[in-house]
Amino acid sequence: MTDIKLGLSMRYLGYHIAAWRHPDFDPSWLTSFAAYRDVALQAEAEKLDMIFFADGLAVRGEDKPAGALSHDVRNAELEPLTLLSAIAAVTKNIGLVATASTTYNEPYHVARKYASLDHISGGRAGWNVVTSWSDQEALNFNRVAPLPKDERYDRAAEFVEVVKGLWNSFEGDAFTHDKASGQFYDPEKLHVLNHSGRFFQVRGPLTAARTPQGRPLIVQAGASDKGRDIAAQHADVVYTVALDIEEARTFYADLKRRAAEYGRTANAPLIMPGLTLYVGETKAEAEAKFHEMQSLIDPTAGLAMLYNYCGDLSAYDLDKPIPEDFTSDRISISASMIQKARRENLTIRQMYENAAAGFTGRYMVGTAKEIVDDMQHWVEAGAADGFNICPPMLPQGMEDLSRFILPEMRHRGLFRTEYSGRTLRENLGLD
Amino acid sequence: MTDIKLGLSMRYLGYHIAAWRHPDFDPSWLTSFAAYRDVALQAEAEKLDMIFFADGLAVRGEDKPAGALSHDVRNAELEPLTLLSAIAAVTKNIGLVATASTTYNEPYHVARKYASLDHISGGRAGWNVVTSWSDQEALNFNRVAPLPKDERYDRAAEFVEVVKGLWNSFEGDAFTHDKASGQFYDPEKLHVLNHSGRFFQVRGPLTAARTPQGRPLIVQAGASDKGRDIAAQHADVVYTVALDIEEARTFYADLKRRAAEYGRTANAPLIMPGLTLYVGETKAEAEAKFHEMQSLIDPTAGLAMLYNYCGDLSAYDLDKPIPEDFTSDRISISASMIQKARRENLTIRQMYENAAAGFTGRYMVGTAKEIVDDMQHWVEAGAADGFNICPPMLPQGMEDLSRFILPEMRHRGLFRTEYSGRTLRENLGLD
Repeated sequence: MTDIKLGLSMRYLGYHIAAWRHPDFDPSWLTSFAAYRDVALQAEAEKLDMIFFADGLAVRGEDKPAGALSHDVRNAELEPLTLLSAIAAVTKNIGLVATASTTYNEPYHVARKYASLDHISGGRAGWNVVTSWSDQEALNFNRVAPLPKDERYDRAAEFVEVVKGLWNSFEGDAFTHDKASGQFYDPEKLHVLNHSGRFFQVRGPLTAARTPQGRPLIVQAGASDKGRDIAAQHADVVYTVALDIEEARTFYADLKRRAAEYGRTANAPLIMPGLTLYVGETKAEAEAKFHEMQSLIDPTAGLAMLYNYCGDLSAYDLDKPIPEDFTSDRISISASMIQKARRENLTIRQMYENAAAGFTGRYMVGTAKEIVDDMQHWVEAGAADGFNICPPMLPQGMEDLSRFILPEMRHRGLFRTEYSGRTLRENLGLD
Repeated sequence: MTDIKLGLSMRYLGYHIAAWRHPDFDPSWLTSFAAYRDVALQAEAEKLDMIFFADGLAVRGEDKPAGALSHDVRNAELEPLTLLSAIAAVTKNIGLVATASTTYNEPYHVARKYASLDHISGGRAGWNVVTSWSDQEALNFNRVAPLPKDERYDRAAEFVEVVKGLWNSFEGDAFTHDKASGQFYDPEKLHVLNHSGRFFQVRGPLTAARTPQGRPLIVQAGASDKGRDIAAQHADVVYTVALDIEEARTFYADLKRRAAEYGRTANAPLIMPGLTLYVGETKAEAEAKFHEMQSLIDPTAGLAMLYNYCGDLSAYDLDKPIPEDFTSDRISISASMIQKARRENLTIRQMYENAAAGFTGRYMVGTAKEIVDDMQHWVEAGAADGFNICPPMLPQGMEDLSRFILPEMRHRGLFRTEYSGRTLRENLGLD
């Protein structure tokens, strides 16, 4: 049986920028623990491997065109570690993956908080390792500009080494708790890290017992050469943005090869491309869902998506193509996007609708059969071990999995009906 | 009615260093979420104002005398913010106060995590502001020595300013969520901090809506002049170590006076000295509990407590006084402790028993009537607004409150029978 891994990405309760304007969505959910908890419980009831929260450490930057910031849903959220700890208390089996940046954190804090989440959840914690590249984040952490990319990745690599070292402070049977002798732990089973590197000096030990999973899982999404190297060496799960199956197969083969060179076992790391689904009982129903969401895109928010590529288009008619004489200091970075729009005679509105639809990578619009055919093909072709589902809107996106996708997957023997293990590591079939 | 505030301090499930050796204590509880959760639920059932977790960022340092570290309970714990977030999910009313250091954190992270905890808990979060003074913590955060005390407090003061500024990013009614116009928030109600100071440059805004309490509560425990000043200006609650009622009245009057100078209202900040209780149906029962705990002190752990004051006494007979010819390079820092021991003809064992009994400040051994008499006297005499109960051992210490102390307090009208408010701020009667 092909066993497809499934995660549910829950940030902002949906990845479509217009989701908050949908009639079925209550924007007050965005800061309501109950809303996230209820989706997590539904994901657990359906035996998904894990839920995931992406993260960032600033609001979007420039208010261009005017109003872009105040028309953007991405202004207020719950912090992922506190949120997942709370969810841990009311769930039993589902994995809990939260993002933390290696650029503006200290390894001791990150090691400690994820170890704690692993204890609290009984072995379900995962750390999504990211670096912080944006100007806006730098400005919140005493810097005027982000670290250069190479330095960010070098720091990330050392950061992960330190965190893994700290997680190894006490062996699994170190705590003897011998009331008679008064010995609380066996000093032979304590490892003091004494790390001294380019970015970090961390003595240790971490004030945490070895965690139920041995250590929390490490998740990573870097596509660059250094990013792939960190993933190959350390990651248990890799998220990717893969638009095309051939490109995905090439990445998959490259990463598994690199991992093997580090002596990793055959299935590590698991590779899970992002996937956004619009699914219905019929193709027409799926398309209606998709078009309804697209029609809800606020023009200011849509133009803000285009701003980073094309500059400010707010002076033009949305339902016409970009004027021939339009120029912008940003136009060079996406000459190809504008050329494509001109070639296909796209209006400005169609341009931002395309950008919104593909915001998180690949999306599909179709019936359960069509979508599961495709997912199965990707996994069987060696392009993916599973998928990180990035729903356009929650809880609807989770309900669509329950109602359409999972029954079809189970019918084909592609997805579990019960959790097989106690920890996320076990459920993912990792060593 | 005199209304006495009560908090329960829960770190290590008890403050007596021998608690883990007690027959009723299972040391595996120390990393078990369920153990903390169950005490929190009991504290909430008894309508306590809040639970509290102290914190540190390293294990104790020197292994002196040999074995000191491995005989110490303080080696493995859960991280307080993740733990309180998890507890938030299964409680409704009780306040949740966690420590975070201003020395080795960034204000953006602290502001964000506590704001998130306040949202998740529906308005029950408090931040206990501390500075980190120890060598061992410095070594975990890229330093060879701690910051000098003045610099630590200057940094703390600026840190608190930045965090409060970030919590003020969005006004309470900023999020208009206007689906029709696409306006997510009213830009007039966004405040960008643009902080630039000696220690921190933080632009903001924080990616968090104003929290249910307006902002999380601020708790502080500094007794130095700079510490008192931070408390007077910012704290909603102040923890103290007060051994003596006159000393406590002087501190109380000084802090309330300083607070008034900052324009604070009459009852802020609330002052809550730590208090460790050994209580029984009879005085004899209370004393038996106390002596049982004292008898469980492991000599290595006891000598480790004395080491910092007196040096290494492990070569001597525990049941005799310190030899007359004993010298140590540490002896100068507590000549008075040794002189007192000699004056009272205390054995080494008695010395460390005294140190263990008073480890967190004041302790009382007695009946409910005796203890509540004393508590009432302190509050009525202007020495305290309530107490931060630091039980020798949990859950027993919480059960003792339920069984002995709270019925006596309620009988006298000194403590609530129901929560009056929805938030911690409301329950404490703060503006």
